[in-house]
Amino acid sequence: MAESQDRETVRALLDSVRAAGRSALTAPEGKIVADAYGIAVPGEELARDVDEAVVFANRLGGPVVLKIVSPDVLHKTDAGGVVVGVEGSAEVRAAFDRIIENVRAYAPDARIEGVQVQQLVPPGQEVIVGAVTDPTFGKVVAFGLGGVLVEVLKDITFRLAPVSADEALSMLDSIGAAEILRGVRGAAPVDRRALAEQIRRVSRLVTDFPEIAEVDLNPVIAAPDGAIAADIRILLSTETVKPRRTYPREEILASMRRLMEPRSVAVIGASNEEGKIGNSVMRNLIDGGFSGEIHPVNPRADDILGRKAYKSVTDVPGDVDVAVFAIPAKFVASALEEVGRKGIPNAVLIPSGFAETGEQALQDEIVAIGERYGVRLLGPNIYGYYSTWQDLCATFCTPYDVKGGVALTSQSGGIGMAILGFARSTKTGVSAIVGLGNKSDIDEDDLLTWFGEDPNTQCIAMHLEDLKDGRAFVEAARATVPKKPIVVLKAGRTSAGAKAAGSHTGALAGDDAVYDDILRQAGVIRAPGLNDMLEYARALPVLPTPKGDNVVIITGAGGSGVLLSDAIVDNGLSLMEIPPDLDAAFKAFIPPFGAAGNPIDITGGEPPSTYEATIRLGMEDPRIHALVLGYWHTIVTPPMVFAELTARVVAEFRERGIEKPVVASLAGDTEVEEACQYLFEHGVVAYPYTTEQPVAVLGAKYRWARAAGLLDGDR
Amino acid sequence: MAESQDRETVRALLDSVRAAGRSALTAPEGKIVADAYGIAVPGEELARDVDEAVVFANRLGGPVVLKIVSPDVLHKTDAGGVVVGVEGSAEVRAAFDRIIENVRAYAPDARIEGVQVQQLVPPGQEVIVGAVTDPTFGKVVAFGLGGVLVEVLKDITFRLAPVSADEALSMLDSIGAAEILRGVRGAAPVDRRALAEQIRRVSRLVTDFPEIAEVDLNPVIAAPDGAIAADIRILLSTETVKPRRTYPREEILASMRRLMEPRSVAVIGASNEEGKIGNSVMRNLIDGGFSGEIHPVNPRADDILGRKAYKSVTDVPGDVDVAVFAIPAKFVASALEEVGRKGIPNAVLIPSGFAETGEQALQDEIVAIGERYGVRLLGPNIYGYYSTWQDLCATFCTPYDVKGGVALTSQSGGIGMAILGFARSTKTGVSAIVGLGNKSDIDEDDLLTWFGEDPNTQCIAMHLEDLKDGRAFVEAARATVPKKPIVVLKAGRTSAGAKAAGSHTGALAGDDAVYDDILRQAGVIRAPGLNDMLEYARALPVLPTPKGDNVVIITGAGGSGVLLSDAIVDNGLSLMEIPPDLDAAFKAFIPPFGAAGNPIDITGGEPPSTYEATIRLGMEDPRIHALVLGYWHTIVTPPMVFAELTARVVAEFRERGIEKPVVASLAGDTEVEEACQYLFEHGVVAYPYTTEQPVAVLGAKYRWARAAGLLDGDR
Repeated sequence: MAESQDRETVRALLDSVRAAGRSALTAPEGKIVADAYGIAVPGEELARDVDEAVVFANRLGGPVVLKIVSPDVLHKTDAGGVVVGVEGSAEVRAAFDRIIENVRAYAPDARIEGVQVQQLVPPGQEVIVGAVTDPTFGKVVAFGLGGVLVEVLKDITFRLAPVSADEALSMLDSIGAAEILRGVRGAAPVDRRALAEQIRRVSRLVTDFPEIAEVDLNPVIAAPDGAIAADIRILLSTETVKPRRTYPREEILASMRRLMEPRSVAVIGASNEEGKIGNSVMRNLIDGGFSGEIHPVNPRADDILGRKAYKSVTDVPGDVDVAVFAIPAKFVASALEEVGRKGIPNAVLIPSGFAETGEQALQDEIVAIGERYGVRLLGPNIYGYYSTWQDLCATFCTPYDVKGGVALTSQSGGIGMAILGFARSTKTGVSAIVGLGNKSDIDEDDLLTWFGEDPNTQCIAMHLEDLKDGRAFVEAARATVPKKPIVVLKAGRTSAGAKAAGSHTGALAGDDAVYDDILRQAGVIRAPGLNDMLEYARALPVLPTPKGDNVVIITGAGGSGVLLSDAIVDNGLSLMEIPPDLDAAFKAFIPPFGAAGNPIDITGGEPPSTYEATIRLGMEDPRIHALVLGYWHTIVTPPMVFAELTARVVAEFRERGIEKPVVASLAGDTEVEEACQYLFEHGVVAYPYTTEQPVAVLGAKYRWARAAGLLDGDR
Repeated sequence: MAESQDRETVRALLDSVRAAGRSALTAPEGKIVADAYGIAVPGEELARDVDEAVVFANRLGGPVVLKIVSPDVLHKTDAGGVVVGVEGSAEVRAAFDRIIENVRAYAPDARIEGVQVQQLVPPGQEVIVGAVTDPTFGKVVAFGLGGVLVEVLKDITFRLAPVSADEALSMLDSIGAAEILRGVRGAAPVDRRALAEQIRRVSRLVTDFPEIAEVDLNPVIAAPDGAIAADIRILLSTETVKPRRTYPREEILASMRRLMEPRSVAVIGASNEEGKIGNSVMRNLIDGGFSGEIHPVNPRADDILGRKAYKSVTDVPGDVDVAVFAIPAKFVASALEEVGRKGIPNAVLIPSGFAETGEQALQDEIVAIGERYGVRLLGPNIYGYYSTWQDLCATFCTPYDVKGGVALTSQSGGIGMAILGFARSTKTGVSAIVGLGNKSDIDEDDLLTWFGEDPNTQCIAMHLEDLKDGRAFVEAARATVPKKPIVVLKAGRTSAGAKAAGSHTGALAGDDAVYDDILRQAGVIRAPGLNDMLEYARALPVLPTPKGDNVVIITGAGGSGVLLSDAIVDNGLSLMEIPPDLDAAFKAFIPPFGAAGNPIDITGGEPPSTYEATIRLGMEDPRIHALVLGYWHTIVTPPMVFAELTARVVAEFRERGIEKPVVASLAGDTEVEEACQYLFEHGVVAYPYTTEQPVAVLGAKYRWARAAGLLDGDR
């Protein structure tokens, strides 16, 4: 659609409003802006006399509303200055005259500027279209149904502005009551294109004019043949947001590569004294098996843990990729100056005592030093980081050595320790664990950029409490998701709390509602809790990507089958409708009182051969895209027998180039725990004592596959 | 409120409708029923002439609607036979005459019976009040807002009919959009009493007349000064439900006591042959350490596992409390006859091959035998049962011996095995595990009746796929909940599927929506999944009951504090607003950059003494009712040090008679797992690598405490 905004008109209008010291536009000003941006509002004109009124009414067509325009009449209706729904010259004439007469009687001295002739908005579905300025994501456009009921139920959806026509259309389907717009109980559907166009144009407006803080089209009347904003409200802001320093992608990758694959690391504040952070970091670097150079820096030692120590980092010979800081906060700035002078590209700032304890000035100071020298800062206030494939443990925590495909980051140290313990306990293969702490410089978008390219990383999981720059994150996520899944645990979901809002849209834009919609749009898998994030991170790299929507449950326990079906629906997955030939094929393997269909209930007392035959059929048939297995511990098929046969069948098909996600729920005595671990290590995501977890993980994989566009071909 | 139903009128009317072979009442018949039950509908009368019309209009008061009444005019509006909103004698006269004139012109030969004068329903909030006949719960009354939006969003609530006035009022607060009824954006609130009265009267009506299958008052117009049903629709059913056999409470308790605390058990089909179920059952009884008599019954053996075997159960000497069946389905009936003749009160039917494999007739046969002899049947198609405090393992699974306070039941054998494995792995103390299988006789309400009385049981957890008699379950649950919590995992939640419905209420009454509301009303804690049920069962008996709503988070990891706060809100708990004196008291123990308030962030590097001092204060202050602890693994306070100090403080206060629920989330390396187990064993519910789980358990405890009426005193 051709852009036809009249920017100059809006620019001039906004400038005059601001010059007048106002922050809210009047209704006529709102109409000027709407007209300039092609936002459909009721047509209206100011008639100076009765003949003009007739001409204007005829031009607008259909019924009109007439309203007195007088600076001296505040309450138009009380003055008898409003007539609704007149049509045809005679009615317009009569109404015009009646209005003038009424107002003269009501206020004899009123200055009458004329009568506004306004198109009567036809009946239709009330909706709200709006835009707000989110502290994290900037300009955000909103859509929901109108009316108090929707306000109470908070059924509204958000997108980053500007939106494309398609994105705007997608918003119509993103609300709970979407069905209404398609017409229920025989009602005609609304004009979706016209409605989407209102959204698109509002999003364009706020993008073009950053000083517009909030826009409310409330209500927009969506009819089968158009959508008209009955009221428009525009609020300006005087705040100017300081643009954040950004680095080009190539620069980010270059410094991140040196951070994550360093050849030489200096430890500032290295120590021989046990219990000191500088001692733990040195030990972990050495014990972790890092094969690059490790240079302790300490002005009061010649030798630390058998390595030559330097008085200053500037004395270290050769290029250094990373300087790890293990000194108190107050010494960081001067040491960072030396790091800058030495040309080291990365400073890992373990110490706390900066913004998190109120020392914002100290943090600002180090950020300024970093920017001056081009040193990227990780932290401060972190546990350090692990780059497992480099055998690099630059942290004061314990080493970690199970190499694998998951990169994990956390904003909080406590969560970092939970990551470490969980990963070790479950033998999760990890490519990196990174503490982000105060995020004074390096943040999630830098890491996403790197992990997206890192061949060792197949899945990224991030705990975050805020985003310094929501748009940069979304950009990095969108570039990464087509390659690998991103799991995000957003903490502080429910703290939405009191946000001052000057519009309905603003009042509905709770922090978390905006985060949720925009993360989903970015293709990110949002984990509902810490344990979910950890389980997704562990399991997603294990599962192959599904090629289509058809999920089949094969279960030895009918009871598990019911619960697994519940979980399928809860996770938005599709239980395949089994075609008759396939149903017959499954039936051939199971007892006559077993149930084919889906779930396929092979019944409880079956030998390993029944599990094997049905799993094999599930892998073989190309119409089936994913398997959910329910195992029931019996003497006939013990847990490890089930685990081994399942792993064998899956491996055999993998050899033949056939890969499908297979997840399993094992119900049984404690031996099932060992069987689950075995299955996990052999490419089958399996859990004991839960029917929910395996399906939740499969659901996460599907959400990613859908976001990455990998399922479309089969739909 | 005095009951003033005119039952005779309704009885006569329904009989005549059924005699006429109809199942739907006409609108005038609906009005007769409404009037008989005091359900407010618009007043109306049939005026034969214009003078009557004026009299009736004056009697009704306010504006009225006039409608032609003629058997020959189907489309009243087309015939000009309807006039809306006339008031006063002159208007009524004119409208009456116009209607007669219009209809004469439209259909000159039409027989005109008169003009209906109907009260015009004033504007107000549209709501729906209805009743349906649920297959599980019988007569159920429903309430929701009216209009298509609510239908799309399915915002509706259900209760067992009949409801009291208070229950009816509570329904107004149980919908998502409840706020609307209280008046939003300056709107006046609706007349809650009048609305509740409509609900109550509908519930009374369907209770009094079981043949009424569905009632729809749609819409009811709820205004600030009344609530009037603008339309009433009543459907009759011809189905008659066979009343289920019920036993008096004392009889249930008597036979359950002999089942759960038997002195003598016979095993029918006991065997010396390994791998046979009758061998496993014998072994488990013996190896489990059961101290009562164990009598093998087998016609082809003299001695089984060193015990004298009998040809028939009738040969066993003395009283027998339980006969465990380990023989194929086809032999069950004749053996059950012998059990009946011997006067054994309980038959535990392990064999499968009954209703679950389509052999309904075989199952009906054994049920009839059981009823004839007064033998209560457990199963068939079960793994058996455990009564831990009796050292009784009457099952073919493995023995279980950790005695404790949880009674678990499952409808499915697979889920039973998951219960066993989970319990063993987590060392959960169990009072009983019972398989219910086909529930041909004994079901959840019998077990609830027993477990409610059993002093060894402190918490009951039940997996169920259906209820044979929803009302009996609710009755048993209501009697039990004040004494101990009941956790229910209802499988098949999402299978609601296609249910034929003849009314709006019917269409909105998905199986699970009804289950959910009614289980909540019964005070049952519904577990969202299998693992949740198991975790609640394990943890609830460990936690003392909270005495009030004030929850305080004390955390060493700020990041955990944020996630724990999220979980608090998710679980409907209340973060206490800390009064200034208490805030100051906490502040005295934590570093200046730590944060008091709630969560209380003691910061990460603190020694054990800080944890101890703050936990101690949390236990000491009577305004605090529950503690949520967030632990961060550091060298300064290792996991077991934290665990021991926390357990010690909690024990010390318990000695002093001060008990509060304390739950903990431990973030750290794998040592936290041992610390969690230690804490659990010492009365603190603790989990590693999750912030959600400990708060979910606390939430479950609170839900129970509220349902049991234990929190009220403090609110």
